Amino acid sequence: MMSAPPDFGKVARALDSGCAHTCARLITSIERRDSDIIPLLKLLYRSGRGNRIIGITGPPGAGKSSLVNQLIGHLRHLGKSVAVLAIDPSSPFSGGAVLGDRLRMMQHSTDPGVFIRSMASRGQLGGLTRAAGDTLTVLDVMPWDFVIVETVGVGQNELDIMQLADVVILVLTPMSGDDVQAAKAGINEIGDIYVVNKCDHSDADRTVSYLQDMIALARHLYPDKIWIPPVLKVQSLSGAGIDELTGHISRFFSTMSPDTAEMRQRHRRRIAYQTKEILRDILNRRFLTSSDQHIESGIASIMRRKLDPYSLATELLAAQK
Amino acid sequence: MMSAPPDFGKVARALDSGCAHTCARLITSIERRDSDIIPLLKLLYRSGRGNRIIGITGPPGAGKSSLVNQLIGHLRHLGKSVAVLAIDPSSPFSGGAVLGDRLRMMQHSTDPGVFIRSMASRGQLGGLTRAAGDTLTVLDVMPWDFVIVETVGVGQNELDIMQLADVVILVLTPMSGDDVQAAKAGINEIGDIYVVNKCDHSDADRTVSYLQDMIALARHLYPDKIWIPPVLKVQSLSGAGIDELTGHISRFFSTMSPDTAEMRQRHRRRIAYQTKEILRDILNRRFLTSSDQHIESGIASIMRRKLDPYSLATELLAAQK
Repeated sequence: MMSAPPDFGKVARALDSGCAHTCARLITSIERRDSDIIPLLKLLYRSGRGNRIIGITGPPGAGKSSLVNQLIGHLRHLGKSVAVLAIDPSSPFSGGAVLGDRLRMMQHSTDPGVFIRSMASRGQLGGLTRAAGDTLTVLDVMPWDFVIVETVGVGQNELDIMQLADVVILVLTPMSGDDVQAAKAGINEIGDIYVVNKCDHSDADRTVSYLQDMIALARHLYPDKIWIPPVLKVQSLSGAGIDELTGHISRFFSTMSPDTAEMRQRHRRRIAYQTKEILRDILNRRFLTSSDQHIESGIASIMRRKLDPYSLATELLAAQK
Repeated sequence: MMSAPPDFGKVARALDSGCAHTCARLITSIERRDSDIIPLLKLLYRSGRGNRIIGITGPPGAGKSSLVNQLIGHLRHLGKSVAVLAIDPSSPFSGGAVLGDRLRMMQHSTDPGVFIRSMASRGQLGGLTRAAGDTLTVLDVMPWDFVIVETVGVGQNELDIMQLADVVILVLTPMSGDDVQAAKAGINEIGDIYVVNKCDHSDADRTVSYLQDMIALARHLYPDKIWIPPVLKVQSLSGAGIDELTGHISRFFSTMSPDTAEMRQRHRRRIAYQTKEILRDILNRRFLTSSDQHIESGIASIMRRKLDPYSLATELLAAQK
């Protein structure tokens, strides 16, 4: 039996009543990797409500953040509260765009029914994945109607983060036929709802029909699936198509209730994923951080080619047992 | 003292004489993660020649592969042999472009003075980084005048791979003023040679002058640096500016010889990086692969919120001690 950290009751009550300040403070602790956050996270996880999590991903420049912004507006209009976790792998090459995106979302920043947090990392995507999971643990104790997780889906790791969501919206821009063919295999398994943004582009209809073909084929291969991913066109700058998107999201949650076999399977997968990310993070910290000095002591021999990185790594592992 | 694997002498002789077949076979073993490759890699590392490694990175769509293609042509024209390792994090969204790039390089595929290998991974960037390092270990035993490592630099991990190179060429396209400002901080530390590709674009000159300002500032901050990164304009499709680029590369290697303090420092950093990647890969395989079954057994309790992923991860670690 574990003993509760002294402030657990207070923190849990604050989160339960929707206190954004407490939430923000905990996320900062998560990002700083404070060690005393872990006992708290264990208990918070067990107090989770199972809030609905919407994942939004897609390539850079697809207009995800404008879409999220529109989605927030629409959900607020329906009286729903929303928390947004935006994950930026912060490549030096995405700096400008991402800053602009965040500014765009700021219009909702004074609305108490909206919570927006951006999470970036230079260097450690592993740590970022774990921090995202930890943040969802905190947000899940709060009374949000929807939690949105947005990632820039350029790499497999960012796509993997989508395993933390209940429903995944894949945002694409109109593509040439060749590009769609090339992307097909990869995007086949990702989306529950496909959104073609910037739908006034000439390639939009072709992109939609390619995606529909892909989904029809998947339906043929897996006839038991109870959810058939819709493909819709939106224009995230003007907001055209956003109400249709919201409709599909509600329909998803009513079709795919938590007790369906498919959602139970996803839930299992999410837990496995989150556990592995925590494990990976602990391992990286424990072994890699403590190995710095040992590595330093071996470098001179490696430079003279009397030793090699493979043998040094093996030695380090053996020494830490 | 370690005993040499039975085929070490034969493999080392084949590589030493430049046998591309042996090299390709070893890389396949590396990618398949064959366990018997490790004893071989240890010895091969110690037989390394210290070949010159050129790293090329930059955002998707900057024209890196066309540039590499031109560079291969130019180096061949000068009578130099070249091995190319192209690393694709293979996001589903980059499929089309990357395929086209590879096809473009194929024109050199029948030239025995050129070796091209593409390395892609869906899922495990950690494993990919290690595989890239292992491949460089193999290529370093062979008599290449230059080894080129190319990555699509969208994430920090791909930029980190550049630590394996002696000289880093950062390829950019003409950017707007805002974009350059945003990118500055990030790209400041990366490049030894900055290349603005697609130099007929109207923003090209402004991008060059922004980069020059950035370098002048860095020079002010670090007056002891013996290498001042040049900024040059190229047109990778036509080949304009490639001879200038090759000139800067030679100048880099004559200025930054292996016994300078700066290059020794880089060499140390590379060894530390490669050792950590090997360590990270071993840890991930040992703990994460073996933990699957244990995680499965905890999922049901976590779904009922009687357990949590944090406690499960800690239990798994304790059990494997």
